[in-house]
Amino acid sequence: MSEIVENPRRGIVAAVIGLGSMGLGMARSMKRAGLDVVGFDVASAAVDRFVADGGRGAATPAGAAENADVVVCVVVNGAQTEAVLFGADGVASAMKTGAVFISSATMDPSVARALSQRVAALDLHYLDAPISGGASKAASGELTIMASGSARAFDTARPALDAMAAKLYELGDAAGTGAAFKMINQLLAGVHIAAACEAMTFAAKQGLDLARVYEVITASAGNSWMFENRMPHVLAGDYAPLSAIEIFVKDLGIVQDMARSERYPVPLTAAALQMYLAASGAGMGRDDDSSLARLYAQLSGAELPGLIGERQSR
Amino acid sequence: MSEIVENPRRGIVAAVIGLGSMGLGMARSMKRAGLDVVGFDVASAAVDRFVADGGRGAATPAGAAENADVVVCVVVNGAQTEAVLFGADGVASAMKTGAVFISSATMDPSVARALSQRVAALDLHYLDAPISGGASKAASGELTIMASGSARAFDTARPALDAMAAKLYELGDAAGTGAAFKMINQLLAGVHIAAACEAMTFAAKQGLDLARVYEVITASAGNSWMFENRMPHVLAGDYAPLSAIEIFVKDLGIVQDMARSERYPVPLTAAALQMYLAASGAGMGRDDDSSLARLYAQLSGAELPGLIGERQSR
Repeated sequence: MSEIVENPRRGIVAAVIGLGSMGLGMARSMKRAGLDVVGFDVASAAVDRFVADGGRGAATPAGAAENADVVVCVVVNGAQTEAVLFGADGVASAMKTGAVFISSATMDPSVARALSQRVAALDLHYLDAPISGGASKAASGELTIMASGSARAFDTARPALDAMAAKLYELGDAAGTGAAFKMINQLLAGVHIAAACEAMTFAAKQGLDLARVYEVITASAGNSWMFENRMPHVLAGDYAPLSAIEIFVKDLGIVQDMARSERYPVPLTAAALQMYLAASGAGMGRDDDSSLARLYAQLSGAELPGLIGERQSR
Repeated sequence: MSEIVENPRRGIVAAVIGLGSMGLGMARSMKRAGLDVVGFDVASAAVDRFVADGGRGAATPAGAAENADVVVCVVVNGAQTEAVLFGADGVASAMKTGAVFISSATMDPSVARALSQRVAALDLHYLDAPISGGASKAASGELTIMASGSARAFDTARPALDAMAAKLYELGDAAGTGAAFKMINQLLAGVHIAAACEAMTFAAKQGLDLARVYEVITASAGNSWMFENRMPHVLAGDYAPLSAIEIFVKDLGIVQDMARSERYPVPLTAAALQMYLAASGAGMGRDDDSSLARLYAQLSGAELPGLIGERQSR
């Protein structure tokens, strides 16, 4: 009389290409959900870390992809995604017919459209599926995924998406739409971090109590998700990277390039990008993106928590 | 055996100078709380409106202030506040010793400090008390007030503050601090509206479903209080002014002037201010501040809801 309840995800093979802070969390989330997960990363130490977890490792992208139903690609940008697909030992020629390539790197929508067409020509499915939420949400399987692609691509990808995401936005059947939504989010996120740092360091320059500024602003119309999330780093004087300056050098660069090619002016984005570039040029590229506050302090003599030494060494 | 419970606010006389959308709501809130409220505005129709409500009207600022314990000044800027205090029929020479002047206009902190000194020299109290929350919160007595001033100023002002505010931040005893907090909030609010309009119109330019963009962004890291509050105007194509473009021409102008005099760079504020100036120059100064979206559409050919006619007439 007992029933055997099959886990519908058992037997599904998922490859994860790119085992950084996001990819590793996504691989672990899928494994926890019962998928058979094989990982690859250009850094063999990252593969070793996943294998030590009980995951399977592969020596090449193609090796990871050859029996996979789902290939999740979590690399830095469109160029790396293209290399994963079509470069040496790329996954495209190794994937089995009908498998789905889930592209999660942030990229120009036109790049996503071009990759999608090349993938479709090989009788593979392509899901344009950028992610949002950071490493902690990746680890807990609670990402936000902004996805577009064919119904077949969604169907095949669903066990993997369900394992990785708390919120899945299905944004239509055209590759590029997911990427476009992600770029709109990145435009806002990047500008809001820069605005938060401009405002908070200006408050410091005026000698205001910064903890009080945080309290008042987070309860006022000037609040943003990024102000609330990033300014505690500035209050603590802790610029250990959770998300680095270079991410927004890249992402606002993509927004600016897209906008230029569409003859769309983005003065706020452009101003913010200049500040990320300056922070990177000043040596903070790998530090937390809230380091823009330190840049404003360097440019104005404002005093921020934890920066006494830097000021004295100016 | 019955007790007579005295309303502690009864008998307290409050003058309100400036009966615009904010001042009228504040006057009504104090009246509702039991204060004896007398109002003045340069527009006699505004006084008539308050009198029709059952309030008392005055013919001059001095006339409103002469028996007042509390004078609340809700005008546009520091120059108007100075005129209310020290201009023809100004309140300063009419106020009784020990009364408090509550200054709620948005202004440069250095102007607030100068006014405070001149008021204190007349044995009057000065409370630097900018407001946030908009007309609806003013009407319901639920404003946020960012206040600084002496303990005596706070004590005397308290019945009025309690009647007008849901949230009262007491930010120290120095005039100028309240104004500085307000300017930090305005910097962020003004930049966030511009960023929201830059992003939303860019989404329109790419042909994205704007209602979907609103749904995704308000649940993502790119969200801001202003994005969430203002973008419904853009989705509805309704630019009837709740808060006008000219408010941010003024407020970001103050931020830029403050920053310039302190040798503090504000590239985000400066970029946003240019867009507000352009919107005003293009004839939208008195329209809702979300009209920056229409400006971006004019500059790019993007199609926004409700703007078909404007596009065709370009």
